[in-house]
Amino acid sequence: MEAALEFLTKFLTQFQSPTLAFLLGGIVIAALGSRLEIPEAVYKFIVFMLLMRVGLDGGMSIREANLADMLLPALFAMLIGCGIVLLGRYTLALLPSVRTEDGIATAGLFGAVSGSTLAAAIVVMESEGIEYEHWAPALYPFMDIPALVLAIVLASMYLKRKDGSVEKVRVWPIVKESLQGSALSALLLGIALGLLTRPEAIFEGFYDPLFRGLLSVLMLVMGMEAYARLAELRRVAHWYAVYAALAPLVHGLIAFALGYVAHVLVGFSPGGIVLLAVLAGSSSDISGPPTLRAGIPTANPSAYVGASTSIGTPVAIAIGLPLYIWLAQTLIVG
Amino acid sequence: MEAALEFLTKFLTQFQSPTLAFLLGGIVIAALGSRLEIPEAVYKFIVFMLLMRVGLDGGMSIREANLADMLLPALFAMLIGCGIVLLGRYTLALLPSVRTEDGIATAGLFGAVSGSTLAAAIVVMESEGIEYEHWAPALYPFMDIPALVLAIVLASMYLKRKDGSVEKVRVWPIVKESLQGSALSALLLGIALGLLTRPEAIFEGFYDPLFRGLLSVLMLVMGMEAYARLAELRRVAHWYAVYAALAPLVHGLIAFALGYVAHVLVGFSPGGIVLLAVLAGSSSDISGPPTLRAGIPTANPSAYVGASTSIGTPVAIAIGLPLYIWLAQTLIVG
Amino acid sequence: MEAALEFLTKFLTQFQSPTLAFLLGGIVIAALGSRLEIPEAVYKFIVFMLLMRVGLDGGMSIREANLADMLLPALFAMLIGCGIVLLGRYTLALLPSVRTEDGIATAGLFGAVSGSTLAAAIVVMESEGIEYEHWAPALYPFMDIPALVLAIVLASMYLKRKDGSVEKVRVWPIVKESLQGSALSALLLGIALGLLTRPEAIFEGFYDPLFRGLLSVLMLVMGMEAYARLAELRRVAHWYAVYAALAPLVHGLIAFALGYVAHVLVGFSPGGIVLLAVLAGSSSDISGPPTLRAGIPTANPSAYVGASTSIGTPVAIAIGLPLYIWLAQTLIVG
Repeated sequence: MEAALEFLTKFLTQFQSPTLAFLLGGIVIAALGSRLEIPEAVYKFIVFMLLMRVGLDGGMSIREANLADMLLPALFAMLIGCGIVLLGRYTLALLPSVRTEDGIATAGLFGAVSGSTLAAAIVVMESEGIEYEHWAPALYPFMDIPALVLAIVLASMYLKRKDGSVEKVRVWPIVKESLQGSALSALLLGIALGLLTRPEAIFEGFYDPLFRGLLSVLMLVMGMEAYARLAELRRVAHWYAVYAALAPLVHGLIAFALGYVAHVLVGFSPGGIVLLAVLAGSSSDISGPPTLRAGIPTANPSAYVGASTSIGTPVAIAIGLPLYIWLAQTLIVG
Repeated sequence: MEAALEFLTKFLTQFQSPTLAFLLGGIVIAALGSRLEIPEAVYKFIVFMLLMRVGLDGGMSIREANLADMLLPALFAMLIGCGIVLLGRYTLALLPSVRTEDGIATAGLFGAVSGSTLAAAIVVMESEGIEYEHWAPALYPFMDIPALVLAIVLASMYLKRKDGSVEKVRVWPIVKESLQGSALSALLLGIALGLLTRPEAIFEGFYDPLFRGLLSVLMLVMGMEAYARLAELRRVAHWYAVYAALAPLVHGLIAFALGYVAHVLVGFSPGGIVLLAVLAGSSSDISGPPTLRAGIPTANPSAYVGASTSIGTPVAIAIGLPLYIWLAQTLIVG
Repeated sequence: MEAALEFLTKFLTQFQSPTLAFLLGGIVIAALGSRLEIPEAVYKFIVFMLLMRVGLDGGMSIREANLADMLLPALFAMLIGCGIVLLGRYTLALLPSVRTEDGIATAGLFGAVSGSTLAAAIVVMESEGIEYEHWAPALYPFMDIPALVLAIVLASMYLKRKDGSVEKVRVWPIVKESLQGSALSALLLGIALGLLTRPEAIFEGFYDPLFRGLLSVLMLVMGMEAYARLAELRRVAHWYAVYAALAPLVHGLIAFALGYVAHVLVGFSPGGIVLLAVLAGSSSDISGPPTLRAGIPTANPSAYVGASTSIGTPVAIAIGLPLYIWLAQTLIVG
């Protein structure tokens, strides 16, 4: 009971943090019919700025990191990415009113990772002074790519069995498509530049100081977008809404448990566990949708994009993130 | 004589301030045919950033403000907004070569408020160390909405009388349309976030430090735009140019006088009086035109937008603002 | 031998500087097929920000500069701009597989100046603590305009002789077209505002602090663009590639020699010599192409833009700049 109250307090305090406040503000003004808009060009640039900052930071940390420490979390990230897709394949995609390929595509999107949600988690954790392995964002592709690949493979297998076709699914083009996506290539470029060059001056003088502020703008856009996509979600089966509300938390908690194993085995930090859970709880908003559209062309984007953008992401940020922070502080640090 | 000289000095010094210098610079390079352009997307984002900063600051100040202090200035703001429209209705709109609905729309635009002009005034006042009530920008909607509503109501009444129609004008849709405009909703969102959440960190680390610099870019755009719109103004009656040159100063001085009453009655600060005068002297550049276009569809936008953008706004910033500052310092502080 | 090693070390260290690292990073991710993109609107705004910063700095320095010191470097800049075009006219443009007007246009582009390359040089020099005359960027138009004018005049003369026409080439429209280009007008506006007004506060609070970071983004864009334009270059004669690889260094070294003369005669600083060489080694990327397209409409833009963007600019920044810095430090300072 006390724990529940404590969580509730933590939860409500979070809504005063700029990250959540702007997300909620975006939902509210969109619901009120505001014509405010942040231009597409600015939105894309902000995403680039955030991922470059996260990548540079990650790359500079990898320089000093013990690579062995990264192995187990990276392995777990891969397992989680695949596990989420399998879980969705054998729950959501089997439901009566859900087309199987739509269900698999949705599971793929929820297994993939959102750079924006990751950036939001980093800002909140840094504001609250929670330490984490700065290389943890480098776990992103280890979860993201396997999830997208597995989803496309499963969907292709399903569709071919249905058609009686025997063509083999080729994995490499899907991996390449993922790596070439704008979000992942910005992050990986940042990691490479952070690792191989000396970007300290521009990191400290440009990318880092603008990080929090730009995130507030991004959260506003995501809030407005969440509301705008609700209409799409209404047009598909209600199961998508149920899945989108529950999946981020289920996935996050599974990842939290695996992160805890890494904590015990190789000393993965509580902050690192939170980030792993956030990665698992997030669903891809930028690079995932086009990859899935190319890989499962018969699936209905309204189903997976609507579920992810309008319910999955707000739940992951507004409920998941404070939940994992509270769990980490209560169960591990406390 | 000495006072005139003093004003002239103040006036000329102002042109060395980045705010006016960039406005003038924009007019000059546009006149010289420069192909420099600040992309629309960047312009929109800059306006958002400035209004969010002004709003957050206002919201945080309202937290500590005595609400009773705001009542009289808010009432005066409403009176000024309506007064400006009535003044225009019974001067400009009655002139022989002016179509009545065009004249009313123009008066509505000059009664409505410009967020950019407000931001310019705040930057200049903060550079000169002039104190003001930080909640004063919250007076914006109290002047803006009544002006737009009254203009649309007057125009509809005029047009219906002409047509012999008896349909009633509905006020709420106009209010809603105004509140949903991008400028006003950015400002109100900022006020709400400043009031209800804890945005201090991003205010001090992002919105505030970028404020002055972004304003310089906006002033450049407004200068270029002012020149570009001159051609439109040339196509309509000369009375629009005369009105656009005089109205900002007449409106500003009326507001200054009412602000002085508030100074005597409830201790409204000299800086607050200047801001009230600036609000009155400004004419809406972002949200007003589409609202008027929707509300008075038969009015000619070239008339009201040209007059406001190419003459009204430069006069309000380059002449009105230093005039009110000088008046405040001479009559009240001095 | 030792000197060569020293240069090589300097050269390789440069690739760790953010300026070169982002340029190279852009080439690499474009080559890997990344879909990352920096929107056109953001790119244009970044160029404006950089040139405004360089211009303001230049203008504020001219205030305190001795105008007589600027005369010889300005004269040399004009000579270099014209010399580059003549050199290209009587080498590249005479080659068998090169259309004469294409060759002249290419020489014009390499004689004209790149604001981005100039900004890159300034960032690298300021990072390394190399002093230079801050008015040196004001040399830009003295090299840029004569080069473009001469190229268009030479091409027109050639084409008219071929056609037997006798119409005279008019110089002033070309000068005007150049001055109205977005890059040059941003730079000149900055110089004027720096010279005539008091922009210190926004220079130090906005334009200067964002300078290095924005440049890193611009370098990324230029790297991606360099790779993207390679395809165009492949469609034209190989001589363009040879010219584009050699010309920046030949032009830079000629300018370096003339700069050294100015050093001996009027005390032009080693840093100033480097900037003069960088201006000479650069080729116009923003304002030059449209001016040439208008002035020599029959020339093939793929030839000159491809050569400049995909080879000329990377060579000028990645090889030329460290070369001139090393020369200045070895021959003059050392």
